[in-house]
Amino acid sequence: MSHQRSLALEYAKEHKTRFLDELIEFSKIPSVSTDPERNPDIRKAVEWLAEHFEDVGLRNVEIYPTDGHPVIYGDHLDAGPEAPTALIYGHYDVQPAEPLDKWDTPPFEPVVRGENLYARGATDMKGQVTATLNAVEAILRTDALPINVKFIIEGEEEIGSPNLPKFIAENKALLACDFALNPDTGMVAPDLPTITYALRGLAYFELRLWGPDHDLHSGVFGGAVHNPAQVLADLIAGMHDKKGRVTLPGFYDKVRPLIKDERAEIARLPKTKEWYLEATGAPDLWGEEGYSPEERTGGRPTLEINGLFSGFTGEGSKTVLPAYAMAKISCRLVPDQDPVEVHKQLLRYLDENAPPTVKWEIIPMASGPASISDRSSPWAIAYLKAAESSWGVKPAFKREGGSVPVVIFFQKLLGVESVNIGFGLPTDNMHGPNEKLHLPTWYKGTDALIHFFFNLAD
Amino acid sequence: MSHQRSLALEYAKEHKTRFLDELIEFSKIPSVSTDPERNPDIRKAVEWLAEHFEDVGLRNVEIYPTDGHPVIYGDHLDAGPEAPTALIYGHYDVQPAEPLDKWDTPPFEPVVRGENLYARGATDMKGQVTATLNAVEAILRTDALPINVKFIIEGEEEIGSPNLPKFIAENKALLACDFALNPDTGMVAPDLPTITYALRGLAYFELRLWGPDHDLHSGVFGGAVHNPAQVLADLIAGMHDKKGRVTLPGFYDKVRPLIKDERAEIARLPKTKEWYLEATGAPDLWGEEGYSPEERTGGRPTLEINGLFSGFTGEGSKTVLPAYAMAKISCRLVPDQDPVEVHKQLLRYLDENAPPTVKWEIIPMASGPASISDRSSPWAIAYLKAAESSWGVKPAFKREGGSVPVVIFFQKLLGVESVNIGFGLPTDNMHGPNEKLHLPTWYKGTDALIHFFFNLAD
Repeated sequence: MSHQRSLALEYAKEHKTRFLDELIEFSKIPSVSTDPERNPDIRKAVEWLAEHFEDVGLRNVEIYPTDGHPVIYGDHLDAGPEAPTALIYGHYDVQPAEPLDKWDTPPFEPVVRGENLYARGATDMKGQVTATLNAVEAILRTDALPINVKFIIEGEEEIGSPNLPKFIAENKALLACDFALNPDTGMVAPDLPTITYALRGLAYFELRLWGPDHDLHSGVFGGAVHNPAQVLADLIAGMHDKKGRVTLPGFYDKVRPLIKDERAEIARLPKTKEWYLEATGAPDLWGEEGYSPEERTGGRPTLEINGLFSGFTGEGSKTVLPAYAMAKISCRLVPDQDPVEVHKQLLRYLDENAPPTVKWEIIPMASGPASISDRSSPWAIAYLKAAESSWGVKPAFKREGGSVPVVIFFQKLLGVESVNIGFGLPTDNMHGPNEKLHLPTWYKGTDALIHFFFNLAD
Repeated sequence: MSHQRSLALEYAKEHKTRFLDELIEFSKIPSVSTDPERNPDIRKAVEWLAEHFEDVGLRNVEIYPTDGHPVIYGDHLDAGPEAPTALIYGHYDVQPAEPLDKWDTPPFEPVVRGENLYARGATDMKGQVTATLNAVEAILRTDALPINVKFIIEGEEEIGSPNLPKFIAENKALLACDFALNPDTGMVAPDLPTITYALRGLAYFELRLWGPDHDLHSGVFGGAVHNPAQVLADLIAGMHDKKGRVTLPGFYDKVRPLIKDERAEIARLPKTKEWYLEATGAPDLWGEEGYSPEERTGGRPTLEINGLFSGFTGEGSKTVLPAYAMAKISCRLVPDQDPVEVHKQLLRYLDENAPPTVKWEIIPMASGPASISDRSSPWAIAYLKAAESSWGVKPAFKREGGSVPVVIFFQKLLGVESVNIGFGLPTDNMHGPNEKLHLPTWYKGTDALIHFFFNLAD
């Protein structure tokens, strides 16, 4: 190990207590982005960061207003144009803490119990943001930073980042970089550092069906009129075959198959059938034939029913033959599926299968493509080695079933891939009561980031 | 025609204007049973009837309190034990008049326009109640009543007659009769008097399905967990086969087939495919193969989806994989199906078809058997001939798709069949704005009832 690297690691070790104190201070600010009453705390959080950016030694520190909560930027570009530039993403907003009575200690009075720090936002993601800042500080105090860094920390991630795309689009030069580092995706287990290299996309629709032009009496008309709730059920039932595959015409045509190597990586993850049963409480699992649960959620596309509505849904009985039935239907997409094509496939399925007894309409809603990044990019390799240095184990490559909008924003607007990592654990109760951060993992994470920044310049 | 009969018919003709004036007076009372603020009007209506009963010449007139709105009783039993006794049913309550702005004239200010009287309750069923009273009056003023009559008029029909069964059960001797006359079922057209000889029964259920034990993120878990809304759709879709038949095991075992003669009668009704398309606004009809629309609604059992609920049903998109899905499911039954057996059939269907990925529960709700009465009973024949005398055409025998609870109550509690007739028309806007009564049909109806009472004694 290089002398510089050792010095930075030593510095991080020596300042552990202060790093934790700073995180505790940061976590005391109830920067809940959904709640307008918390706007002063949002301001307080971004100002805390501005001051901290300056303390660490970042430059051009500026709080940028948006139509919602501000974005904060700061950089350190002394490594020069030959060195790589990392855009480090984070968010300073947190989820609401309710239900408060489920917390063992108050959510905004951070407390260390055992190996964990308990506080709303500790793992999601104030701990992740400070880990990157701590790593940069450790290098800057002991040596020169071997790469260029640009920090962009937003305040609206927990409400869907509504103003971030505009900010990125209007500040492409400011944010220009070689890759992005997104420490918001966590680890699958405390002993298994993780690189999330693929995210599923989304194509969300509302299907509306009309039968009779008004609600009918089910006694007077039942049997002679096709019930739109029944038609809806028929159509939904037909969207999967007996092997659990989606039947929309052409749905799998552009699906990039999971290669052997990826499946071997996925098999390393501790997300077994038992894990899924435990995490979901479902009586049994289900899914596309020929794939493991983790392959199904990460590497295969799906079609889900997110909502159903028709007729009478109150207490008791009402003998209505409903005029209308509705389903919210969404597909999770994998590379190289296109949400626009999936929309066409759904239209074609309905054209071919909806009976003449109903009228129907499809409203396309939220959508975005899947993303996948090169597992052998210099950035991925640099993190792979860094994590191995810190944990003594080769990190797992993971596909994530959900979508991370910022990864898509960076891809589309800045043309760069993201290295998606993080030091949160599945047991951290992210978004729930008693959210916590596992401190040994957090310290190892800071070390891994120090290695990462040095590896990038090697 | 007998002299007595002619005199009674003559009397009815002479008193047409007064009969109409009395109906107008009765219809002015806003006896809306759903609205507690109208309770004084309910009282006014039942007292109006009490006075009118006395005027007509009924005896033992009494207003019986119930846990809800009162029942009024009155009789005339001079024909003696050898003559048949008719229990004449009716209700003095009416539907709410809302939406008021859809009425051309105020609902409780009855007005004659053309051949119709416009008022809430004119056809449903104050006009029907007064027609029976007018017929009895016409005979009593000109001769002796050839049969015994007992009137029972309730005030809760529009809210499901919650207190009527108890009243009947507690007054079996008072209400003892040979048959019931229920003038609440109307005619299919102004030139086609109608006897409704069969009513469908009902077996209503709520099906509840649970998959995971909490709502999941459809990105994180979609593909590995069976979506209960999808399972619900599969189960519902499987409840009909391609011929539109219900697949619950044994569902048709006890279904009494429509015989040739009944199908010929049904074919006389003017309820064609076009009629159904017009009445429902459905783009096309649907139903069990091999039956006409009117046969399907009247003579065949069905399974309807009355309500569907799962997950997110608000505006926009939410990527939830729901923990729960619910359907309201009801079967319309024909003789000799049994609602208890249908419940068992549904349980068996679910046992055989629900996958191990969900837990389910069936909540049985409203239920009642179908009813069918003998088309060649003395009462049916008496009305058949009476209607032919009045309209010059043989009345149609009709099966009704809905349930009429009072028919079942009389059958179960008094052991008698009902003659279900009436002088309301499909165009009378029963329950809707601008409810009306077709006066020429109403007058002919009174004549038919006079004939009916004489025929019963012939």
